[in-house]
Order: sequence, then structure tokens, then C-alpha cells
Amino acid sequence: MSNSGLNEALEDLVTANRVLAHEQVLDGFGHISIRHPERPDRFFLSRSRSPELVTRDDLMEYDLECQPIDQRGRVMYAERVIHGGIFKLRPDVNAVIHHHAHPILPFTFSKEKLRPVFHMGGVMGREVPDWDIRDKFGDTNLLVVTMDQGLDLARALGNNRMALLRRHGAVVAGLTLRQAVFTAVYSTDNAKLQLAARGELEYLSDGEIAETEKLLTMPVAMDRAWEYWARRCGVLQPD
Amino acid sequence: MSNSGLNEALEDLVTANRVLAHEQVLDGFGHISIRHPERPDRFFLSRSRSPELVTRDDLMEYDLECQPIDQRGRVMYAERVIHGGIFKLRPDVNAVIHHHAHPILPFTFSKEKLRPVFHMGGVMGREVPDWDIRDKFGDTNLLVVTMDQGLDLARALGNNRMALLRRHGAVVAGLTLRQAVFTAVYSTDNAKLQLAARGELEYLSDGEIAETEKLLTMPVAMDRAWEYWARRCGVLQPD
Amino acid sequence: MSNSGLNEALEDLVTANRVLAHEQVLDGFGHISIRHPERPDRFFLSRSRSPELVTRDDLMEYDLECQPIDQRGRVMYAERVIHGGIFKLRPDVNAVIHHHAHPILPFTFSKEKLRPVFHMGGVMGREVPDWDIRDKFGDTNLLVVTMDQGLDLARALGNNRMALLRRHGAVVAGLTLRQAVFTAVYSTDNAKLQLAARGELEYLSDGEIAETEKLLTMPVAMDRAWEYWARRCGVLQPD
Amino acid sequence: MSNSGLNEALEDLVTANRVLAHEQVLDGFGHISIRHPERPDRFFLSRSRSPELVTRDDLMEYDLECQPIDQRGRVMYAERVIHGGIFKLRPDVNAVIHHHAHPILPFTFSKEKLRPVFHMGGVMGREVPDWDIRDKFGDTNLLVVTMDQGLDLARALGNNRMALLRRHGAVVAGLTLRQAVFTAVYSTDNAKLQLAARGELEYLSDGEIAETEKLLTMPVAMDRAWEYWARRCGVLQPD
Repeated sequence: MSNSGLNEALEDLVTANRVLAHEQVLDGFGHISIRHPERPDRFFLSRSRSPELVTRDDLMEYDLECQPIDQRGRVMYAERVIHGGIFKLRPDVNAVIHHHAHPILPFTFSKEKLRPVFHMGGVMGREVPDWDIRDKFGDTNLLVVTMDQGLDLARALGNNRMALLRRHGAVVAGLTLRQAVFTAVYSTDNAKLQLAARGELEYLSDGEIAETEKLLTMPVAMDRAWEYWARRCGVLQPD
Repeated sequence: MSNSGLNEALEDLVTANRVLAHEQVLDGFGHISIRHPERPDRFFLSRSRSPELVTRDDLMEYDLECQPIDQRGRVMYAERVIHGGIFKLRPDVNAVIHHHAHPILPFTFSKEKLRPVFHMGGVMGREVPDWDIRDKFGDTNLLVVTMDQGLDLARALGNNRMALLRRHGAVVAGLTLRQAVFTAVYSTDNAKLQLAARGELEYLSDGEIAETEKLLTMPVAMDRAWEYWARRCGVLQPD
Repeated sequence: MSNSGLNEALEDLVTANRVLAHEQVLDGFGHISIRHPERPDRFFLSRSRSPELVTRDDLMEYDLECQPIDQRGRVMYAERVIHGGIFKLRPDVNAVIHHHAHPILPFTFSKEKLRPVFHMGGVMGREVPDWDIRDKFGDTNLLVVTMDQGLDLARALGNNRMALLRRHGAVVAGLTLRQAVFTAVYSTDNAKLQLAARGELEYLSDGEIAETEKLLTMPVAMDRAWEYWARRCGVLQPD
Repeated sequence: MSNSGLNEALEDLVTANRVLAHEQVLDGFGHISIRHPERPDRFFLSRSRSPELVTRDDLMEYDLECQPIDQRGRVMYAERVIHGGIFKLRPDVNAVIHHHAHPILPFTFSKEKLRPVFHMGGVMGREVPDWDIRDKFGDTNLLVVTMDQGLDLARALGNNRMALLRRHGAVVAGLTLRQAVFTAVYSTDNAKLQLAARGELEYLSDGEIAETEKLLTMPVAMDRAWEYWARRCGVLQPD
């Protein structure tokens, strides 16, 4: 890969930070990472900073043990182990998001199960597993801060595209950056819609979920949404 | 019709894209079309692009089989058959909207029936039929992508002004572009209000619905709203 | 009164239009009027236009029969009789608002009663009467368009500060323009909060309502809010 | 402390006013104060003005009896006694917020108890006591306007970080300004999330609350959020 390939990937990571902040998936907290496109044993993640503010210079390189390659005094996200854990156990995954989007959170402290209720919700897949840090690590401040915790969460995620952290938030894993962003935005919409409905609900069938998951590989959907979000958050300028 | 008449119709279609995006009826997805004002066997629809971004150059001309007249390499909306199907079966209709407005969606996967609860809601008419793609086409990704599917949906719409697509969204049909936009915005408001209310609800009587439907032909209402929306989305400038 | 007094009153009416639009009490529809400060048998109201767009030139003068003094071809609000009716029956009232604020509407088509649940909600007073146009006028499009209808509504309002129009909206009457605006904004907040709460609710006591109503005559409250709203909608510039 | 230390504290107080308005904790009403960094028997609070509009010149100095040191004709908040009362009884507290954030209010007039449902909600502490002005002072306009009332509220707050005022709002006390702002924003988020969830809820354990409270002393969390909020409200400029 040329330098320009890496640069483009890192620019996309900056854009993804802005998009997710603007679409209210991320707020002051939460983060998104990508695997190094050439070195699968490395990943990129911003220094400790709110996603809306992240610039190219804030991006740091890490190994899969979450050690910084070149820290230069920058403060690190305490929860970077979420990213390291998933990149380690899921060689197919190239982008990871950890977020606390408001519509998702009620599903982390109630018994209501997050399930696809409209076609776009199908992208989160048939199963969204729950992970409770308390099960194995007892009373904590709920942040995922040790490699042990990060790996435990990654195991709970398994081969799924998304998992919920009880009383805390969610993780999303994508084969590509755009897939991860698309999944995060539309699973959040699905949560919002599910909470707004009343009475007995109807869900997508397993067959429908399998079909809608393919949207994640359709350029017509991926590109249209990416252009839209990049324009909305001001990264792309009008024609 | 002069060229300037067609140009004005196409400019209005661009404005309608922006208005519906700004009023949150459309987001990254969804679309609005108009029938060709001179050739009833043709219609106009943007190339595959988010409505908020649509410009005059994005508009493409189609025949009623949804074949592009002059594609010039532009990517097309997969769901353009929704528009073709309705224009084919409903010669009175001159504008079609397909959307996934959030307030409408809960009515597509719950048993709660969308019904007029305030005077403006009356514009959606007395009956909003449901259409479930699964009934005839089994497990799909829920997108309406074949002429068969488009025509089946159009048959379900019948002579009504609006139909709901189960687990997916809605279609709105107008005798004019402004009617369609007006109906889409106020049916969405009606949905929002209906979801916000609690307990036993009161609805408009059939007589009241018949009377409020006439608002759609009153210039005092149509023009006031159009000016307002065009200003809000930045198409019209302040006096 | 000097000309400058009248001019100031009309400028305030323009500001009130902008404020109520910005605070989401009014949207494309709804209106606010003031009684002529020197001639109690006259009132001012915009020509047919969305409140956010109203300028000084849009303001028209009416007599209490809702006949324009100098129409100059301007299109009029069909519902101006709401204002004429109230100004006629309530000589103490100097400002009238008719609106369809979203949080208020669920109380017009459900059985839930709008009642003061927090101190600011007390400004709407102890009783918010309901008026149903259907009772006396049968099936209509629910708009209030004849003097008979306007007077019937005014009679239902009685000596109260606010009334609800079933399946339609609300009217607010103020001794001053700022009182009417303040009442409209905070009754809308009260409605929003009441809808958000669950289970059995606690309300202000009659004594508390009587005490909080006095806020409407306290300059410290009226002026602080007015400056805030005027800044938010861009009428007032930062220091 | 140098003059520049005091100046910085006052600049931070201006920023906090803007931040809390932008994050919708404060609206036209509500206020935030700090104890004088050098003289514990004094505190600073804006003159009567909406928080979004507060500038350095609006800040007034008070003694703990809420008498202005140098009024210069400025109108004062009637409820400044809330601040004086808490500063008097809680020598550890250096910042006080009184607010009416919408998500908090339903918990002041329903029987639902505000409790930590996600990690950030843990910062409000294990106990959020209720105070009802009616208990001791009977029917009032619910505003806290005498020293007696302010002290009574301060006693109800006790050693907690936050208290609710029935049918009125909340108070938040912080060891530092940033702690108070952080607590106000995230307790408001907690309220919003708790209201959005349905069915039986799960709460943070006492041990988890104790652990999450420590977030309030972690610079990594405090600084990241402060930079984010200051950028969002326009006080800090982009890099």
C-alpha cells in the first residue's frame, strides 16, 4: 500500500469521528478505530479527545496489546482495550466503534431486547449479545480498562456485528470502516424506533435479516449514506 | 408547455427534495418524483443521491417501466419502481414520495393504526392501507426493486393518498407536487402526535376528514406552507 | 400615544412572531395579534404568512368584526375571527395567540387533562377549558372561520388565560403581549413534561397556582425571558 | 491567589453558563455560582440574566447572606439564596447549580425515583433527596427566595451531590466548577435515559456507584468533556 492509501484511510477515520458525533452516535465520549491497512497487528485510534474534535494529528498507532507505538506525551483513551481485544480475536474486523448512543442505552438496563424492526435495522444482524462486566469483574466503574476485560468483551461479541454492554453502551465491529459506521447509525435508529412503538411488535424474519445484511456490501447504499453524512457534518462541501 | 414550465417543475422538484430532508421526512434515503408535465408516460427522479444533496443536474427522466431515457452513467435508485408502479396505475397522480420518516415507522411494525387525530392529519385521508412485501414475495431485504413489486404496492395503495410498507416506510401520492409534500409532512406530524398521546384517543370523524382533505386544494394553506419550508431549508431567501 | 409608541408595539409583535416560531410554539401555521394600543376596537395581525417570516409590512389592522382597515390586496388568515372574537368579549385582553404546538396537541384528542405540574406551568391558570367546534357546528375542517365560531370559542375561553380546541390546537390570551408569549411557551413546556412523566402525577395546589400566576406581572421574569428569546431568534444582537 | 487566578475562575464561570445553556441543562432560567477562590465567605453569580447571555460584566459578588458587595444597580436573581444556603452549610462545596432541565422535571412531580442506570449516571451519587417547599412554607410560587428557604433546602441536600425540588427543579453541588457541570449534564442524561426505558429496570449497584463517582476526580474525563462542551457552545475555537 502506498502512503497515500494509508493517508486516505486515516482521513476517513477523522471523517468517521465527525460523522458519528454529528449523527449523535458519539458525544463527548466513545471512539472509533481502524486496523492498520498494511499491518494487521496494529490499529489507529485518536488520543483522548471528544470525537467531534478529532483531527489527523490526534490519531495514534497501537499494537494489539494496546501499547502506543509513538506516544509523544499524548493522553490515551482508557478504554482502548475494547479495540485491541476485538482486533485480536476477530481477524476479519477492520473497524471498531464503542459508543453510548442514547437510544441504545435503555436496552442495556431494561429487559427489552434490541431486535430489527425495520429493514435498516437488519444490518445489526440476528443476534446482539449482552455483556455484563459485573459477571466476571464485580463492582467497577463499568469502564473497560484492562486487556482481560477487553478480551472478555470480545469473546462475548463472538462472530456478531454488535454487542451491548450492560448499564454502559455498545460495541460495533465492521469489515470496513463504512460498514461499522453504517451499522452504528442504523442500529441506533432501530433502537429509537423500537422504543417509540407500543404494544406487541413485529420483527424482521431471520430470512429478511439475512437479506438486509447484504446492504452492507452494496456500494449504492454505502456510498449514498457516506456522502450524505460527510456533507452534514461539514467534511464534504456542497457541489 | 414552454421550456420554462418544465424548468420550473424541475426546480420545484429540487426544492421538494430539500424541503423533505429539512423537515425530516427524508434522511439519507427515500425519494420524491414528479410525472413529466407534458408526457404522462414519463417521470423525473434524482439519480441515487441523498435528497438533501439533490441538484437540478441529478434529475433523471424515466419511462413508466422505469427505464432511464438518458442515463449518462448515473447510478439509479433501486426503488424507482415504486414511482413507476404508482404513475402507471394512477393517472391522476403527478407526484410520489417514498420515505422512512421516524414517526411513521412504529406504525409499520406495531398493531397501532395510523389515524387522523388533528385537523392537519385529515389530509392523509380516511384509509391508509398496509402493504407487506412478504405476503407475495417472501423473505427479501424489504426493498421494492422489481416492477412486479412496484405494481403490487401500487395496487395496495389503490385510490388512497398514502400507504404504509410493513417494517419499511411509506408512500405518498399527490395530484400535485405540493399536495404530496404537504401530505407527507402533516401525516408525519400526525404520527408523532398520535405516538405522544396516552390512553383512549379521539379521531376525526369521517365528515371532518372529508372536509380537511379540501385543505389540499386551498392556495392559502398550500402557498403559506411552501414559502415557509422553502425558507427554512434555504432555497428561498429572506425578503 | 405617540407614533413611536405604536411603532414599538408593532415591532414587538414582529418579534413575538419570530420568538414563538423559534421556540416551536408556532410552525408554518398559527398566529399572534395585539389590540391597537390606542383604539380598543381595532387589532393588528399579520397577513397570511408563516410567523417565522413575518415582517413589519405584513401587519394588517382589523376592526373587531375582522374586517381589514386597509387590505391592499393582502391575503388574510382565515382564522382571524379567533382574535376578533376574543378581543370583543374580553376587554382586558391585549394579545391573543392561536397555535398548534406539538406538546399541547395530545391533550386535545386524548382524555388526559393538561394541568400545572411545575411552577412555570402555573401561569396557564387553574382551568384550561376545552372547546369542540363539532358540538355546535357539526362536521367541519375544524378551522375557526366565521364570527359565530370565533365568538363561541371566546365564550368557552371565558375568563381563563388559555383554552384547548379539540383535535386542533390552543388559544392563549394575555393582558400584555409578553404575558401571552410567556404563557404560551411555558404551558407548552408543561405539556411536554406532563407527557414525559409516568404513573400517578402530583399537581400544583390551587394556592400555588394563584401564587405562580403572579410571575406574569414580575418584570424580573418577563424581561429576562424576553431578552433570552429575542436573542435566540436573532432579533436582538449579542452585547 | 493572583488576580489572574481569580480572573480565570470567573472566565470559567462564564463558560459554564454558556455550556449549561447549550447542553440544555439551563434555559431562560436557572443559574450557576462559584465560591470566591480566596474568600470562602463570598460567592459569584450573574446578575438576573439568562445563562446563555451571561458575560464577565454580569458577574456579581455576594456574601453568604446573599447581600451584594457592589450592586451598581444590577437586578439580582431572586433565588440567589439557594446558592448562599448551600455555600453556608457545605464548606466543601465550591460550585452550585440550580436548574429546571426538562428530563429531570418529571421526577419532581411523579413517584418515579431518579437512580443511576448507566455508568455516567453514577456521578450523581447513591442518594438524590427530595425537598418540597410546601412542607414547611405552605403554598408559594415555589421559588426559593428567603434565606430560611435556602437553608432549609441546603439541609435537605445534606452531604449529597444533588437534590430535587418537588414541582420545580434541581440543585447540584460540586467540589469544583467542572465537577458540578459534569454532574448536572450526566444526571440529566441519566434522567432522559431512565424515562425512555420500559418495564423493570436494572440500576448500578452501590459498589458501582462508589466507583463511578471517582470519575469526577479523573482529569482524563473532566478535561475531555470540558473541551468538548466549550467547543460546542463556541467559547473555544477549533484547532
